[in-house]
Amino acid sequence: MLRTHTCGELRLIDVNKEVTLAGWVQRVRNKGGLIWLDLRDRYGVTQLIFEEGSTDKVLLDKAASLGREFVVRTTGKVIERTSKNDKLPTGDIEVKASSLEVLNAAKVPPFIIEDETDGGDELRMKYRYLDLRRNVVREKLQLRHRMMQETRKYMDAQSFIEVETPVLIKSTPEGARDFVVPSRVNPGEFYALPQSPQTFKQLLMVSGFDRYFQIVKCFRDEDLRADRQPEFTQIDCEMSFVDQEDILNTFEGLVRHLFTNVKGVELGGIERMTFADAMKYYGNDKPDLRFEMKFVELNELAQGKGFAIFDQAELVVGICASGAGEYTRKQIDALTEWVKRPQIGAKGLVYVKCNEDGTFKSSVDKFYTQEDLKAWAERANAKAGDLILVLSGDAKTTRKQMSELRLKMGEELGLRDRNVFKPLWVVDFPLLEWDEETQRYHAMHHPFTSPKKEDIPLLENDPGAVRANAYDLVINGVEIGGGSIRIHDRPTQQLMFKHLGFSDEEAQKQFGFLMEAFEYGAPPHGGIAFGFDRFCAIFGGSDSIRDYIAFPKNNSGRDVMIDSPSTIAEEQLKELSIALALRKE
Amino acid sequence: MLRTHTCGELRLIDVNKEVTLAGWVQRVRNKGGLIWLDLRDRYGVTQLIFEEGSTDKVLLDKAASLGREFVVRTTGKVIERTSKNDKLPTGDIEVKASSLEVLNAAKVPPFIIEDETDGGDELRMKYRYLDLRRNVVREKLQLRHRMMQETRKYMDAQSFIEVETPVLIKSTPEGARDFVVPSRVNPGEFYALPQSPQTFKQLLMVSGFDRYFQIVKCFRDEDLRADRQPEFTQIDCEMSFVDQEDILNTFEGLVRHLFTNVKGVELGGIERMTFADAMKYYGNDKPDLRFEMKFVELNELAQGKGFAIFDQAELVVGICASGAGEYTRKQIDALTEWVKRPQIGAKGLVYVKCNEDGTFKSSVDKFYTQEDLKAWAERANAKAGDLILVLSGDAKTTRKQMSELRLKMGEELGLRDRNVFKPLWVVDFPLLEWDEETQRYHAMHHPFTSPKKEDIPLLENDPGAVRANAYDLVINGVEIGGGSIRIHDRPTQQLMFKHLGFSDEEAQKQFGFLMEAFEYGAPPHGGIAFGFDRFCAIFGGSDSIRDYIAFPKNNSGRDVMIDSPSTIAEEQLKELSIALALRKE
Repeated sequence: MLRTHTCGELRLIDVNKEVTLAGWVQRVRNKGGLIWLDLRDRYGVTQLIFEEGSTDKVLLDKAASLGREFVVRTTGKVIERTSKNDKLPTGDIEVKASSLEVLNAAKVPPFIIEDETDGGDELRMKYRYLDLRRNVVREKLQLRHRMMQETRKYMDAQSFIEVETPVLIKSTPEGARDFVVPSRVNPGEFYALPQSPQTFKQLLMVSGFDRYFQIVKCFRDEDLRADRQPEFTQIDCEMSFVDQEDILNTFEGLVRHLFTNVKGVELGGIERMTFADAMKYYGNDKPDLRFEMKFVELNELAQGKGFAIFDQAELVVGICASGAGEYTRKQIDALTEWVKRPQIGAKGLVYVKCNEDGTFKSSVDKFYTQEDLKAWAERANAKAGDLILVLSGDAKTTRKQMSELRLKMGEELGLRDRNVFKPLWVVDFPLLEWDEETQRYHAMHHPFTSPKKEDIPLLENDPGAVRANAYDLVINGVEIGGGSIRIHDRPTQQLMFKHLGFSDEEAQKQFGFLMEAFEYGAPPHGGIAFGFDRFCAIFGGSDSIRDYIAFPKNNSGRDVMIDSPSTIAEEQLKELSIALALRKE
Repeated sequence: MLRTHTCGELRLIDVNKEVTLAGWVQRVRNKGGLIWLDLRDRYGVTQLIFEEGSTDKVLLDKAASLGREFVVRTTGKVIERTSKNDKLPTGDIEVKASSLEVLNAAKVPPFIIEDETDGGDELRMKYRYLDLRRNVVREKLQLRHRMMQETRKYMDAQSFIEVETPVLIKSTPEGARDFVVPSRVNPGEFYALPQSPQTFKQLLMVSGFDRYFQIVKCFRDEDLRADRQPEFTQIDCEMSFVDQEDILNTFEGLVRHLFTNVKGVELGGIERMTFADAMKYYGNDKPDLRFEMKFVELNELAQGKGFAIFDQAELVVGICASGAGEYTRKQIDALTEWVKRPQIGAKGLVYVKCNEDGTFKSSVDKFYTQEDLKAWAERANAKAGDLILVLSGDAKTTRKQMSELRLKMGEELGLRDRNVFKPLWVVDFPLLEWDEETQRYHAMHHPFTSPKKEDIPLLENDPGAVRANAYDLVINGVEIGGGSIRIHDRPTQQLMFKHLGFSDEEAQKQFGFLMEAFEYGAPPHGGIAFGFDRFCAIFGGSDSIRDYIAFPKNNSGRDVMIDSPSTIAEEQLKELSIALALRKE
């Protein structure tokens, strides 16, 4: 190695050792005949010292001439510092340099490479390879590494086998959102990139693999909205001979392992909630449980008192914001404006302040007596100093609006602490959901999810009421994972396709291979997939690897390495055109 | 879990326990009122027993009716076997079943699911999910898992960080063999799939990551020849502040770790050989060192004795096949035919048999005395009972032919044992190689490989003689990995592109982003990439994941999941055509 030690490892015990270090010049200070140089690498920072008189003049001049981010190598003796720096792990020592070699010069970097930088977003993105030198950025990628290592450690210990499933797979006629990859070797033919290895992993269960996992890239040719990337990483898992309870327990184990070993947080058990309760109490299938503020239905208390808006509403629902009773008129007006924004779409907001003297002040005092409001407060468990906020309208829309308002209030009251973690299993999802656009039922999870046995009779007459053996892991209001117990026999799978509006021919054409496999001894099985990017984000890592690992921007502001610029070779273009033309014939 | 134990774990110590097992029916035997059922899962086989009289009649009938590969679940008591089976880890016990539930029936499988099967290649590929139930096939994938786990364990312990680099990257105009992926969200634009993360990892070094690795899929749109797959897996690595010696040592460590922990083989040190020596002594840059049989040059011994073919040859070269002196005329004729096949292309083959009585018998006795032949034998270290085989012609071609013949003889003499491992570092590769077709030099490794400092002056006048800081890991004649110390400054990289025939503009357009990054403090760095599929194959695993993980064949014999069938949705086709048309404008 070009070094004997990294810049992060020397301590008092190393004093008097002759060492060689290599790294980047973080900073050079020059004062009263002394030069201090902070040398940085991934592992830390070590101070070098050059002293007029005792250091060779040529060396001294060289040290003084170094610019920021020069790559240098130095040899010297470790000495104890006279004034120690206890903020630095290496702060007890410094290295008295006896040689200095410039391994590579550096232009002046366009922004300061420290935790606090003067570089704006654009500049840092343009020089992403320099931004990645900053500890705070690099640590996000190190966290991903740690997450991957610990995931694999846990899964291996639980007898899961990691199997790489193919990336270039069959393009199915209906996979309209798949990326497709024209093959030039077989003109007119295409591969697709997988949106998930779902059918692969089910076939592995049919093959008797028993426990499969994979940390795997998946692809979707979708708009690059904030939370959607064309490629993303999943922890993909499947197990045989299990019921839902086994899956939840096994992966509670994984989640707890990652929290303990990566984040240093001890999680208790993971709460469970049915989809129905999540919707009823939080208006949301991924409730943020870092704070309570449950929905309280007020219909029978609020209706019939002459307030037409409530009287005509399907649902009158409130939340109690503890400690917000002191909100000013201005603050409440702002909230009202907020819920009336098109993104939320409420018509208005009713409030009830619970005064310290036991009286109530509300925006609907005209219609309700103090007694009425007291009943609301009791129902909402509100105490003096609290604020009750009420929305009304049709049930579905109102719950959705109230869910947004609840999160907003949680935010305003500081109840959504990034360092508090409240995981939750949401269970008993509906099997199907009605799609207004296509006027038919869609699988809420995917068509391989099994219905609850006791609900199968409902399929014919009330399909929307059928519950699935499906579950999501939610942490702090973010859906981190989801899965289900799968269908493992042909008749049930066929029935499912029928209810999804597939003809027998369509079902056979698209998924015949899977249904045939089920006829050769498929074990009961189920699984789960975690959104790895989101899981890392919950821990303070990167949301998407593409946010961090992409590389220099060119002059048009496009990414030189990961954007999709509009240039391919003419030859290639010709071949592709031929490939497409052949296909069309 | 639907089971209390797997089918591989019950032992004598479990006798009298009430257990529940689940798995596949391997075999049912029915004799004299007793039914034995072998129940199989990934972990092993356990014998169930049903006994007329003591077992309920309904249960007995059910057991007798089960077909092969039915999926069942049973509860019963563990008892000691009267006749034990010491070939089976569970062979000391059996389970006296008290209940039996069919979890899924199975059609009669098209071939026997055992290590030795009656299914031909085609049938097994058609029902690959059934073939994967066979231990010998499943174990290949388990080996891959083990290899991945141990690789990551070693790399993590050595402070390497695994970073996922993007799969959808920029398509460069010159990347003619890249797969390209049209984006439908941005019509007329394309992604490419990476052939390797080479530039990404170099930029990570510029970013100060110091030690990077990744087990990563790479893609090449090439003919599906036997040893080329459109997607393959690499162990991709890069380190900063190292010279070649550091890389070789670090990755000798990895190779040794994998041999010890996956294969249970203790490797000694890894031999090293220059490229020049490999070519001189083995005619091959990836010599199989499981056997010696070095080339012996015979020019000055064989020339000038009137044998025109040798006299006119640039090279006369022999090998000594120990113990092949007894080869019959027929065997030698067959060898002669073999070297004359177009794939080898030799004009003929000269042999010298070293007889037990100290005399020599050769095909060129007319031209050479016994003394002459004795000199050859001494040069070749041949003893009585050995066979010397000699080829001649122009040096390059003859070495290549002799390399093939050497491997053939190694095979025939049983010297290429799959359980013997001879790893080798081949070092000092040439930087450039002349390409007849394009009439210019190409980078032998890739354009980022650094020339040896002392050879840089040769670049101008004798580019072919410049050696690179490049190395390959060869095991048993297979190239398992290759890498180099990279160029890390702009001027050298520019010089390199110049010698590869790039104009400054071309170089800047394609690799300007990398050369610019080098100007902001790039550390000296180098790396290596291992062909993961080949490494697994050396250990007896699968050559390519696609060979094993692909799924059912459809009627046309095409793979239902990983082939590239010619169907994509009409809508998709239209979008693609528009995308291409836009690009062409």
